[in-house]
Parts: sequence; structure tokens; C-alpha cells
Amino acid sequence: MSRDNWGRWGDADERGALNHIDAAAVRRAAGLVRSGQVVGLAQPLSPKTPIPAHRAGIQHFLGRDGGDYAAGARRPGGFQFAEDTVIMPLHIGTHIDALCHAWYDDQLYNSFPGAGTRSTTGATRCGIDRMGPIATRGVLLDVVALKGGPLPGGTPIGRADLEQAARAAAVQPGQGDVVLIRTGWYESIGHAQGVSFNEEPGLDLEAALWLAERGVAVVGADNFAIEAIPFPTGTVFPVHQRLIRDFGIPLLEGLVLHLLAETGRHEFLFAASPLPVTGGTGSPISPMALL
Amino acid sequence: MSRDNWGRWGDADERGALNHIDAAAVRRAAGLVRSGQVVGLAQPLSPKTPIPAHRAGIQHFLGRDGGDYAAGARRPGGFQFAEDTVIMPLHIGTHIDALCHAWYDDQLYNSFPGAGTRSTTGATRCGIDRMGPIATRGVLLDVVALKGGPLPGGTPIGRADLEQAARAAAVQPGQGDVVLIRTGWYESIGHAQGVSFNEEPGLDLEAALWLAERGVAVVGADNFAIEAIPFPTGTVFPVHQRLIRDFGIPLLEGLVLHLLAETGRHEFLFAASPLPVTGGTGSPISPMALL
Amino acid sequence: MSRDNWGRWGDADERGALNHIDAAAVRRAAGLVRSGQVVGLAQPLSPKTPIPAHRAGIQHFLGRDGGDYAAGARRPGGFQFAEDTVIMPLHIGTHIDALCHAWYDDQLYNSFPGAGTRSTTGATRCGIDRMGPIATRGVLLDVVALKGGPLPGGTPIGRADLEQAARAAAVQPGQGDVVLIRTGWYESIGHAQGVSFNEEPGLDLEAALWLAERGVAVVGADNFAIEAIPFPTGTVFPVHQRLIRDFGIPLLEGLVLHLLAETGRHEFLFAASPLPVTGGTGSPISPMALL
Amino acid sequence: MSRDNWGRWGDADERGALNHIDAAAVRRAAGLVRSGQVVGLAQPLSPKTPIPAHRAGIQHFLGRDGGDYAAGARRPGGFQFAEDTVIMPLHIGTHIDALCHAWYDDQLYNSFPGAGTRSTTGATRCGIDRMGPIATRGVLLDVVALKGGPLPGGTPIGRADLEQAARAAAVQPGQGDVVLIRTGWYESIGHAQGVSFNEEPGLDLEAALWLAERGVAVVGADNFAIEAIPFPTGTVFPVHQRLIRDFGIPLLEGLVLHLLAETGRHEFLFAASPLPVTGGTGSPISPMALL
Repeated sequence: MSRDNWGRWGDADERGALNHIDAAAVRRAAGLVRSGQVVGLAQPLSPKTPIPAHRAGIQHFLGRDGGDYAAGARRPGGFQFAEDTVIMPLHIGTHIDALCHAWYDDQLYNSFPGAGTRSTTGATRCGIDRMGPIATRGVLLDVVALKGGPLPGGTPIGRADLEQAARAAAVQPGQGDVVLIRTGWYESIGHAQGVSFNEEPGLDLEAALWLAERGVAVVGADNFAIEAIPFPTGTVFPVHQRLIRDFGIPLLEGLVLHLLAETGRHEFLFAASPLPVTGGTGSPISPMALL
Repeated sequence: MSRDNWGRWGDADERGALNHIDAAAVRRAAGLVRSGQVVGLAQPLSPKTPIPAHRAGIQHFLGRDGGDYAAGARRPGGFQFAEDTVIMPLHIGTHIDALCHAWYDDQLYNSFPGAGTRSTTGATRCGIDRMGPIATRGVLLDVVALKGGPLPGGTPIGRADLEQAARAAAVQPGQGDVVLIRTGWYESIGHAQGVSFNEEPGLDLEAALWLAERGVAVVGADNFAIEAIPFPTGTVFPVHQRLIRDFGIPLLEGLVLHLLAETGRHEFLFAASPLPVTGGTGSPISPMALL
Repeated sequence: MSRDNWGRWGDADERGALNHIDAAAVRRAAGLVRSGQVVGLAQPLSPKTPIPAHRAGIQHFLGRDGGDYAAGARRPGGFQFAEDTVIMPLHIGTHIDALCHAWYDDQLYNSFPGAGTRSTTGATRCGIDRMGPIATRGVLLDVVALKGGPLPGGTPIGRADLEQAARAAAVQPGQGDVVLIRTGWYESIGHAQGVSFNEEPGLDLEAALWLAERGVAVVGADNFAIEAIPFPTGTVFPVHQRLIRDFGIPLLEGLVLHLLAETGRHEFLFAASPLPVTGGTGSPISPMALL
Repeated sequence: MSRDNWGRWGDADERGALNHIDAAAVRRAAGLVRSGQVVGLAQPLSPKTPIPAHRAGIQHFLGRDGGDYAAGARRPGGFQFAEDTVIMPLHIGTHIDALCHAWYDDQLYNSFPGAGTRSTTGATRCGIDRMGPIATRGVLLDVVALKGGPLPGGTPIGRADLEQAARAAAVQPGQGDVVLIRTGWYESIGHAQGVSFNEEPGLDLEAALWLAERGVAVVGADNFAIEAIPFPTGTVFPVHQRLIRDFGIPLLEGLVLHLLAETGRHEFLFAASPLPVTGGTGSPISPMALL
């Protein structure tokens, strides 16, 4: 049983690799803001947002709207307003996995019991409410540029690919970074309804471990599960198992990266903050790159 | 009919005062990051999050959890995971109002018809999906420090109060800023369940207009509706009507500001990004201050 | 503008053709119970229940369950329990349409304004809460038996078909009856996921009007919309328009009728009661036939 | 460990005391229909429906409504319609408990494991989908009439009370009956919002066992939990534990009985059918009495 970062930040730690981000890292990252351009990295959230079949998509209901007034609703003091409610899985569109999202051998990151996440309580350990805001250097590794186009479904991205992409970008992923891998999935097929969630290009385990061992804080990608699917024989979500549970690295999925890639920038100030849902296992998130 | 900023950024504009934030503003704001400390400004989101009686609170359901495995669920390849779904109003806890949230005379900001927001379509204009990420200078105006403690419910905050708070902070709110008003509501009573939403300390209309005319991009506060409640006689949400609809200024409500105030910093890089719910009238949001 | 039954039971009436069921009809229907066998006529409700693409299927969440106890939840006084929540459209599976569900020319049954159904209020007139329990004679018209098998999608069922089926059953649909049409849709294809809702066998308008003019209280079928789809050129849901809005006849959709047909009985005591959701436009329902 | 009816209808049985209702019982019950009057026994379902604090009330959203058309929505072929979605706990208002709802010692009725009810699967045994329609003799035991008014909260109803009420009604509860106990809770206080769920008049354990041993099929009442609350010292929901788990008797809660009582009838044909939610632990239900 690997437990690579367990105990590294104390027995009570629930933030894992986010501890790699210290004040100096934030200061350095702020210094990367040169043009002042801000690029959003999130998919739109609507009933058309692609979602695996075992999850239901977002539903959006207006509880009060312009139709009410057109149909004669009163407007005290002239005031009119609209408001709404959503029903949505927390793992939808662009979202980040809390450290309680994936585990094995009944233990979460840092030895917390998996049985601490229950219907009645939500996640009592390593929930999304423990994550807090994330601001640090973002590093874009553009495998689409490297390969000359979006990768076909199922394509594994290996350590050598990442090293090459890093060389091309003239930037080395390192401690406290949020690393963003562009596979081309979202821009080429992932934005369409009815897309299969049975295969996607993504990291192989060696590539993921290379990043983990360099001390990155978060691994993100523009696909739906970071890692290559189908999995190699005999494993199921090996990158989730190792990165989330053993290294305490949150995974940031479903990013929109082609607009960022078009700017030509490969390092920048990355800022994103999950919704602090008490006991949640993840959160939709709307990250930005400040260039 | 006032339409102060209508047409200012073109007839098709749906972003209003956020247009005040240009690249130079972002660059200057990034230059405010000195210590590298990052402070989150969002309330936790749970069934205990206070909410007005006409809205239902968040519900959080685990669709798969550690209890399933304890009860014998299979774990193919050793992999275990938990996932969840929320039902929540978009105006809950710390949230931002889209420009379609409030209006009068059947017209939204920039003359778009209120009837364009319907049950079948959501908001077709000025929805939260048009807002994008917000990164700019944040300015904290600490009325709690000014008055020596949290303001009682119903207390109006006037222009002179804001001017005094700005002098004390040695910072003038100006073009493109996100201004954060600390009233003491959340820290003193707003975090409790069963709290009344019938009164709160907040801005009076003159104070709000003073900010609007200085060109601020967003007005935020640590109360639930920015403005003083009860309203002056004969009006209903006058600040919402004027700032959102006439000036195109989004309101950022339910902030947690006492921890930020404790740092002693009054200007900083503010970063926040709503969930891009297509046609949504607002979004829970999790802002951060980079000091 | 046809308004066949408007005013027939008074200007304030919201129950329409259900008024055809009087106490004598209930007594006569009770007299049809001979064997004492009870047959349920409802589809199971689950995420697998087929549903048109513009509606979302049911979601079912356990808020407390056996997994909680397996994972260590306390059991005060030994007591253990499980409970759950559903999210579902009211028009799902086996369901009945309220008289506010369909209309034209901005007027509901009995001249009530369509604008009385709003996001803020639900249906203020002709809602499902006005329907009450339904107990009366049920009459099965078995078009599958008549045609020798389930009807292909799109097949219109005409007046002559209904007359023939009635003759075969030796029973004439009449005042106050709940008439159940077996098309074969559910048993042959309608129970499968991914089934198309673009075509189904069902009533043509003449057949529907024949039933309406005989004074039946409810028209039910084992398809998803009573009427044949695609519609004849130039019309959209003509049976809904005429029966619901002009005659005040609720439609009962998605029935399971093949088990009833196997009993050989064509008249029986029919009993069903919608959930009295205030202002609802319909309700899932679980009818029974007492033979 | 009591397991009074375990094995009585076979090791695979999931319907419990409902097996007491045979075809002869249905025939006899149909014979009780004399006047033809039909009385509904269900509360209205709305956000105002009283609910214990640990559950959320119903939410009702219109996805399309008259406001859409007032605001300009298209009406192809003239057709207009409204439809809606609810979010609701299955144990709300007038509802029936499935046999998987309550247990102790990790075993459900008939020895099925409590761990068979999980977030991922719902109830795999004794779910509400196993219940089917219920038609049998209903017997009203009117404790309000006996005591001269609604019983105060906390009042236990004993075996002698039931015997007296039965004598007054000239009817003996027996095999296969649905017994309905009128306590006065709903009519006097239970219909109000904000009502306390910490106390109610209801059965004591001896009274409940008296009914169970007479072979009744279902025990219902016009309170929220059948049994007296607070519980006697040292127990928690003792009637739920014994009747549901040991006898396999479903409990039918939140009935509206004063209108039925006004008719003066104490036996009648009772008909009700839960929504067959696959794996559900209960269902809102809308029962009727045919007099």
C-alpha cells in the first residue's frame, strides 16, 4: 500500500498537495501577470453539458421570472426580479475532485477511513470544504500542439510526452504548480451531447507519477477524468487511486484549454476556488488564468 | 427612467460595469500582491446556511459513499469512490447577482426585455453565463472598524460613512474596483440558523450611487442584500433597482469579511468567478483576496 | 373555438368530466367486483423509466440507509431507519394530466386564463389538487387483441377500431367511465430505455371525440400521450387540445395493461388517486383494477 | 429478538401483513360500498405541508407555464402546455412506510439484511415497489369521538381505547383490515406550519400489538408517526420497530380523517396505491374510502 504523502503535513492534514503552495509561490505567481488578460477555463453549465450516463445532468428551474410579470404578477414598489434553483451533480462540467472522492483499501488520503463518508453526514474528512481557494502558478502542457492535433480517444499520454511539452513551453512543472494538460478532448468532441465517456485520451500512470513526484499541487486536464480510458488491463482509475489517495493531489477535470493555448502563454497566475459545500466530494469550478 | 450606463458599452453589451475592468486594472491589481497570503471570502454551504424563507436551503445527497462499501458494495480493481448531488438556489450563501436578477419597468440593464427571462429558456440576456471571471483590485471599506462594532439590523450606511472608511483605509474606491463593505452582519448574526431576513444593516441609495458614479465594477458586502432593510418608505430594493438595472453593477452578497479585516489590508487582488450556468440569474461564488 | 363542456357544471368548475361520475356510478362499479383479484396498472418508477428527451428522469437519493449503519452510524434505542428523496417530473411513467396541463387560445378548460399558471404560483386553476380520488367503472378496449398484436408506432386508432373493440368486449363505454385503450406500446417497446418518443400508436381525433361525446370521465392508454404520433399535418396534440381543454377530460398515460388484458375482464372497478400537489399540472399515479 | 411474522408467508416474502388481504377480503370490502360516496384521505402537498426539521419540504417548479406564453413563447399548431417537477422526500404529508423503512439488529422484516439498502442501490428488499395496490376493508377507530375532542400531544392511546372505539363503531378490526386511528392531530394542529414534531398523540406499544395480533394488514393514523411521542423511557419508535420489522405491517401516516368521521361510517372499501419507486423506502399516497 503506497501512501506517498501521508503524514508529510501532519496526521490531521486534509489538504494534501495544496500544502505545496506557500506564500512565496503566490507572490511569484502574481509576478507572472504581464498583459493583464484574463482567460476563463470553464465549460458552460446547462442541460447540454456532457455527463457520464451514471450521473444526471444539471436541471435549472426559474422560481420567478419575466414570464410571471408578463402574466400579471404584482411588482411592489416597481421592483421586479428573477431567481432560480439548480439540481446538479458536484462532478459536472469543469470541476475539481476533493481528496475524499477516490480511495482504495478503505482508507482515504492520510489514513482517514472511507467509512467517514456517509449519506447522513457527507464526507467528514477531506471534503471539498477543506480545500479553500487555490492561487498559484499555472503551467500549460499542450499535448495537442505537440502531436499536431487533438488526441484520439484512448491515447495514453506518457512521461516523455509531458517532458517534451514542457521543453516546448520552456517551463518545468514544479512544486506548488497547477499543471494543465491539453489533450484536445473537450474542444474536439467533449463539448457535444451524447459523447461517449468510455474512452478519452489522458495520462498514463507513469506520467501522473512524474508530476506527483515533482510536487505539483493540482493536476488538471481538458478531458473528463485526467487519465487515459480505457484503463490498462487489471486496473481501474489507477491515476485517481495514486494521485488523490496516496499523494493528496486534487484532480481538476473538464477544463477548456484551447483559448488559453491560443494566447501562447504557458505560465501564468492560476486562480480558482471550489464551492465550500460542507462534506462535498467535489465542486464545479470556474478557474481563470491571469496572463 | 434612469438608464445611467445604458449604451455606454454598446447596445449589445451584457456585462455592464465589469467593462470598467481593463487589462491595466488587472496588471495594477496583480501588483498589489505583497505577502502572498490568500484569504477566502465565502460562507460554508450546507443545510445550515441561512436563507430567506421564500427560498429553500441547499440539499446535499451522496449517490455513492463509504457506507456503500461498508455494506458490501463491489470495488472493481480495488477502486472506491464517492459522489454527490446538490439541490440549491443560485442565490444562496456567498453569491453574485447576474444583471438579469433585478429590474423595473419591464426592462433589464441596457434595455433588454424582462420577458426574455422565462421558465423554458432561463435568462436569454444578462445571464450569469455572460459574466466571466472577475480579477481586479479589491477595496475593503470596514464600517465595523469605523463604528466600533457590527451595525445593528436596519442601520443605513451613508455616503459619509463610506468616505470616512475610505479615508481610514487610505484608499479611494475607483474605476474597475470590487468594493467590499463590512457591516458586521455575517460575523455577528448572519451565520446563525433562524436569523431574520427582515432587517440588516446596509447601504442607503445615496451611498450606493456614490460608488456607482465612481465607476466601480462590483459592489459587495457581508450582508444578504447589500442595502439596508427595511427600505425607506415607498421603495423596494432601491439599490438593486438602480445599481443592477441602471448602472449594470453586479451585487456580491453574503461575503465573509472579518478574517480579511483582521489582516489590516484594504487593497488587494480580488479574484472570483461565478459558475457559468447558462441563463442563470446568479451564482454561488467563492471569492479570494490575494494580499 | 370549441368549448364543448364549458359551463356545463358551473362557471367555477375545475373538475370537468369527472363530474360525470356520480354516486350511482360508484355503486354500480363496486358491483362489478366478482373475483376479488386486484391488478396494478402502473409502471415501476426508476431512473430507467422511459421519458421524453425534454424532461429529466427521476432521481432517487437515500438520505439515510443501511450503509450508514454498516459504516458505524449510531442507533439510539436500537432503532434503525432509511429514508429517501426523489426529484421527478410530475408527468413521468404512469401519470394523469390535470386540466391545466394543455390548452390553446390562452384559455384553459372552462375559460380560466392560461396566464394563471406561473412559476411563482403554480396552477391557480384546474391544478391536480382539484382532481380528487377517482373510483368508477373501468372499461378496457383491447386494440392489441383486435389487431392480433401490438400496433406499430404512428398507427392511428380510429372510431371504428374502438367500436369493434367494445363489441368484442361486450361493453359500451359510457357516462362516467374510465376508458383504458391497449395499444401495445408499453409492453412491446415502451418499457425500454432509449425508446423514441417521436412516434407511438394512439387515438386519432375522431376516436377521441367519440369517447368524449359518450360522456366518459377519463381516457387512458398504455402509450405515452394517448394520441397517435406523428400528428396529422397541421396539428399538434389535437386530442390533448380538444379533450383536456374543451371537454375537461383528464388523460391517463403510460398505463400497464397487458396483465389486465390477460385476465379476460373488460369491465371492473377502477380506483386511482393523484398526489394532491397544490398547483401541479399532473401527477404520477398508481391505478388499480378490482375484478 | 421478536420475529412474529417472519417466515409466515415464505422466506422470500417482502409484502408482510398485506398477505392477509385475500380475494375474499376484497370481495367483502367491495360489498361495503352502499352510498357511493368517495372520501379522499390525503393532505395537500405543497411547500406548506408540515415536515419534521430533519427533512426538507417539497419544492415544485414549473418548467413551462402560462407565463412563458404571456412573455411570447411560440405555440406551434396553437398548442400550449405547462409542466412541472417536484423535489420531495418520500415520507411527506400522507404517506406509507415500506417494510424497509425501519428495523433493528441489522435485520429487516423476514431476516433481510439492513445493509441491502444503500445509496447506490436503494432498497434491494422490502422496497415500496414490492407493495402493490391495497384494496380491502377500512375500519375507522375514532378516538377523537371517544375522548370528546382531539387528543393533546404526547397522549398515549392504549388497547382499551381501541377496544372502546371499536365497540362504539360496532366493528371489530380483523384480518386483512386497514385500520385508521383518528387522534385529532392533523385536524387540530398538524396542518399548520411550524408545528412541533416532538410530540403527538398516538398508539402505545400494547395497543399496536393488539392490532398486529388480530392480523390487520396496515395501521394508519392522522398523526405523523402512528405512535405516541415522546416515547416511553428507554425506547425509540417501539411501534415502528415491532410492527414494521417483526410483523411486516406497513404504517400509513398523516391521514386526513375528520371528513371521513363526519360521514358516520366506520367500515368501507379502502383503496390506495403507493408510487412504485424502485427501491424506495416509502411513498406519498392518496387513499380513498368508498362508502
